[in-house]
Amino acid sequence: MTLPAPLTGVVPPVCTPLTPDREVDVPSLLRLVDHLVAGGVHGLFVLGTTSEAAYLTDRQRRLVVESVTAHVGGHLPVLAGAIDMSTPRVLDHVRQVTAAGADAVVVISPFYSRTHPAEIARHYRLVAAASPVPVLAYDLPVAVHTKLAAELVLELAADGVLAGLKDSSGDLAGFRAVVTGARDHPGITGFSALTGSELIVDAALAVGADGAVPGLANVDPHGYVRLDALCRSGDRERARAEQERLCALFGMVSVGDPARMGAGSSAIGAFKAALHLRGVIDCPATAEPQVPLSPDEVRRVAKFLTGAGLL
Amino acid sequence: MTLPAPLTGVVPPVCTPLTPDREVDVPSLLRLVDHLVAGGVHGLFVLGTTSEAAYLTDRQRRLVVESVTAHVGGHLPVLAGAIDMSTPRVLDHVRQVTAAGADAVVVISPFYSRTHPAEIARHYRLVAAASPVPVLAYDLPVAVHTKLAAELVLELAADGVLAGLKDSSGDLAGFRAVVTGARDHPGITGFSALTGSELIVDAALAVGADGAVPGLANVDPHGYVRLDALCRSGDRERARAEQERLCALFGMVSVGDPARMGAGSSAIGAFKAALHLRGVIDCPATAEPQVPLSPDEVRRVAKFLTGAGLL
Amino acid sequence: MTLPAPLTGVVPPVCTPLTPDREVDVPSLLRLVDHLVAGGVHGLFVLGTTSEAAYLTDRQRRLVVESVTAHVGGHLPVLAGAIDMSTPRVLDHVRQVTAAGADAVVVISPFYSRTHPAEIARHYRLVAAASPVPVLAYDLPVAVHTKLAAELVLELAADGVLAGLKDSSGDLAGFRAVVTGARDHPGITGFSALTGSELIVDAALAVGADGAVPGLANVDPHGYVRLDALCRSGDRERARAEQERLCALFGMVSVGDPARMGAGSSAIGAFKAALHLRGVIDCPATAEPQVPLSPDEVRRVAKFLTGAGLL
Amino acid sequence: MTLPAPLTGVVPPVCTPLTPDREVDVPSLLRLVDHLVAGGVHGLFVLGTTSEAAYLTDRQRRLVVESVTAHVGGHLPVLAGAIDMSTPRVLDHVRQVTAAGADAVVVISPFYSRTHPAEIARHYRLVAAASPVPVLAYDLPVAVHTKLAAELVLELAADGVLAGLKDSSGDLAGFRAVVTGARDHPGITGFSALTGSELIVDAALAVGADGAVPGLANVDPHGYVRLDALCRSGDRERARAEQERLCALFGMVSVGDPARMGAGSSAIGAFKAALHLRGVIDCPATAEPQVPLSPDEVRRVAKFLTGAGLL
Repeated sequence: MTLPAPLTGVVPPVCTPLTPDREVDVPSLLRLVDHLVAGGVHGLFVLGTTSEAAYLTDRQRRLVVESVTAHVGGHLPVLAGAIDMSTPRVLDHVRQVTAAGADAVVVISPFYSRTHPAEIARHYRLVAAASPVPVLAYDLPVAVHTKLAAELVLELAADGVLAGLKDSSGDLAGFRAVVTGARDHPGITGFSALTGSELIVDAALAVGADGAVPGLANVDPHGYVRLDALCRSGDRERARAEQERLCALFGMVSVGDPARMGAGSSAIGAFKAALHLRGVIDCPATAEPQVPLSPDEVRRVAKFLTGAGLL
Repeated sequence: MTLPAPLTGVVPPVCTPLTPDREVDVPSLLRLVDHLVAGGVHGLFVLGTTSEAAYLTDRQRRLVVESVTAHVGGHLPVLAGAIDMSTPRVLDHVRQVTAAGADAVVVISPFYSRTHPAEIARHYRLVAAASPVPVLAYDLPVAVHTKLAAELVLELAADGVLAGLKDSSGDLAGFRAVVTGARDHPGITGFSALTGSELIVDAALAVGADGAVPGLANVDPHGYVRLDALCRSGDRERARAEQERLCALFGMVSVGDPARMGAGSSAIGAFKAALHLRGVIDCPATAEPQVPLSPDEVRRVAKFLTGAGLL
Repeated sequence: MTLPAPLTGVVPPVCTPLTPDREVDVPSLLRLVDHLVAGGVHGLFVLGTTSEAAYLTDRQRRLVVESVTAHVGGHLPVLAGAIDMSTPRVLDHVRQVTAAGADAVVVISPFYSRTHPAEIARHYRLVAAASPVPVLAYDLPVAVHTKLAAELVLELAADGVLAGLKDSSGDLAGFRAVVTGARDHPGITGFSALTGSELIVDAALAVGADGAVPGLANVDPHGYVRLDALCRSGDRERARAEQERLCALFGMVSVGDPARMGAGSSAIGAFKAALHLRGVIDCPATAEPQVPLSPDEVRRVAKFLTGAGLL
Repeated sequence: MTLPAPLTGVVPPVCTPLTPDREVDVPSLLRLVDHLVAGGVHGLFVLGTTSEAAYLTDRQRRLVVESVTAHVGGHLPVLAGAIDMSTPRVLDHVRQVTAAGADAVVVISPFYSRTHPAEIARHYRLVAAASPVPVLAYDLPVAVHTKLAAELVLELAADGVLAGLKDSSGDLAGFRAVVTGARDHPGITGFSALTGSELIVDAALAVGADGAVPGLANVDPHGYVRLDALCRSGDRERARAEQERLCALFGMVSVGDPARMGAGSSAIGAFKAALHLRGVIDCPATAEPQVPLSPDEVRRVAKFLTGAGLL
């Protein structure tokens, strides 16, 4: 399907359920998709950071996209991440995910090698020139150690290179500069400004975001869809209450003992444990070398679910 | 061939010559290998950072390893990088490069995702368990934004996980802790401590390094082989003079205008320009999205070569 | 006067006008205070980062506080920064600024030396135990290279150590955790949650902030006071429009050429140039070693003022 | 006395002993100076980072310099740190320490505020223009979060601004560029290139350093003086053995539990505990808000001393 321009609403970065031996668990993945669709989401983002794309082999990535696009059958837009270090490697992923049916690609700035704004611009221009589908930029400084400047995003949008931005930088002021800049620029139309900051979706929509890509929406899609609707209807107080409920639920990402694992193992482990506890997926395993949650840490995840009325 | 234990001497990270349309230029690559062998190097490291491995597709990476291993025919050890974000993706590369004949793999810590010492350890243990050849750790904080602690390297060496370390951190004190720790640990034998700091190879050998992996050795292999020999013979003053000559030559990495390109584009661009000027490779192109050197910047590379007596 | 609990509204970090030979220009400082008071601000914050406290000698700092407290004569609360590296040095500043009449002190985490959450907590506890006036924490990671965790702020607030927080981290999600945590904690009353993020004051107030400390309010106090009132009255659309006007005005902080000066020189230089152009202060000089704006850069500041209807 | 040009040998950054109530313990300080002089050191550096200058009030700083200069009476050069955030504040310290008799000042780059190479250069030029004694630059990126570029140091040295450099960056390649650059530059004479990297003093002297400023020399001045002499006599193997003994002793800096304190608390706590155990100072207290070592951690310091034959 053609990507809406702009894409609005809730577009969860879909977790990738794994079997105990770390293969993609396709039946669980499709149940997760059904769970999200039943929650009312407006699109799906596969192979993002929350999807553990950085841990999936090329074969596994292809299987994920093919399975999801075949399952949703064009009823929802499916965006796919093309996460890799450089232009040639990203182009290989773009070919793969678009052959597998992705409606748009989400592309991060080059990483590993030291980079430069001129090289980042060149990267997006080359990727967009070769991509058969729209390209959204993905701003995730905690992963790539550079920040996408608002000016650069707007320049690339005005030149037709970028169709949107997924901003997971946490920098609402910078995101606002993109949102208002895109709105006010005569040469930019249909630009999708999406926030990845799940704790301030209400604030992002209030400054003009088109939609949100909240990892926590895997666990509670209904909550984020409700939040989105409340924001759009102008009911700010109930929106704030819903957002605060989701913020409390998000506390689950910190259950993992920081002496024993990194923040990523804890957060993705918690999301998968929650999906497992809710009966959506068969196995909460995360990809290697992430450290699994302990039984006690899983019990703390369950408490967060109970507190939010989800268990 | 079996990797020497320890591996000693000069093991250049081999540049990957490209054609003007950014395909691997195999004839130039083999001429570069011949140039290095003629310079007396003691091993070859393909698919490292200087090799632009981060920019090569999987197909290109395989072509590089196959071409080089077939060409050297076991006369020199060939180490191959397996640079990717996580354990499953690195394991795919390990399979590829060892099928293509690599004698050892050089593996970096996980990156992109936030990581943790426990996850780094788990990563190396899983990779080593699956690798048919010895595993060396690759410490490059500027790329992966974590530092490999000496204690962790020594623990993994004592457990037979790591056969060596390529240290490109620039932290000689930390490297020394590995060198002396490996030397004094009864459970560690044949560990290869290699420095990637091309400006202090003399100092690294003086604290006990086994060898060096200097990117600049692409340009002047004879110089680094001479330096290695002078250090081993105990002729410190001539070694220092040779090292200082190479430090001056290394100045070429800064020819690129920092307003126009990143430090990586400048450094790799300079090495390739130098190899082109010296007649070793056919085309100085670097991979996308790196920014090419200007003609004036190439002229400055030529001056460095002239100053070092190489042109 | 006793600090309101909570302190609400607009509390500008007051610029410190200097003479051409870099002494405190007291008449200009008092005119600036009058300009802010005329704009309707609800308090004054002297010796903050925007006040160039890091550049003022102890003698100059004392002169600033004495001049301002004497001038406002208790009609407005005057908060004073106590910016220094460690507990003993901060305590000296606390003694000085409170002797000079400050109604509260704003204290940053230790910097220069490597620090630790336990040391940060100890720092605030010791400072508060010795301070005759309420202590607000100052979260400015770009300056001190650590982030104040919401949990720590709340723990210190519950223990009566902290009376408030000035959050200049740009992390609205973390700020929200403090705001909602303080609101919901039975042991915390009258806590002042102030945002230093001048580009998202509307969003900060919407998540529950008590007030704002916007550097740009030096230039346009009326605008921020209007924004604050619109937010409190629930007129979100006009609030957003006012905030967007101020965001456009804030563009002035980037007039300085990044090849010639740092971001701080540019931003503080722009604020002072604007105050000079508006006739509030006699001289736009910034403290050493900051680089002054060029005449052309000052002209660009004037354009921003004109664009915002301030010149 | 006039600072030797260059200053050579071992110049310890002198710890500042404190009483249990955190006042400067002058008798212990003078005993420590005697201990260092008896160890054969070639100069003293007071008010450095290891001296806890960041934690000392202005009054305490003055007391330290006056006590030490009066005690050594010109028999050894006394360098004093002028550690503060900006030019005007550093100038105040320069006035104080030179009035108190310091023979040279050691000045760090601006910190806290965001800075720029042009501002760093301006800072050193202004400080040197006002200082009655020679100025050495102090490169400590871990504290100030910028690195002093070799080119800038050499430019300032050639212009007569800098008389030397204390390099505590850990970057031996960059230090070498300063050493060889200063040696080969016709306009630079008598420049003092001092390393602060106590674990690679042998390597630094081998690349051409004039001397060393090792914090650990507080604990074992004889060891560093011996190391310096062995290096100068060309006895590299015995020098390496002595350096490795000191590296093992340095392990004491890690005795502090990282869950309970920062690396600075642990390192300075260990040095002071060692001086206390060796009977040099009366009380091992460190300044606030540093966390004290536990009795068990102090016992581990004692083991390091025993292992090095110092207890």
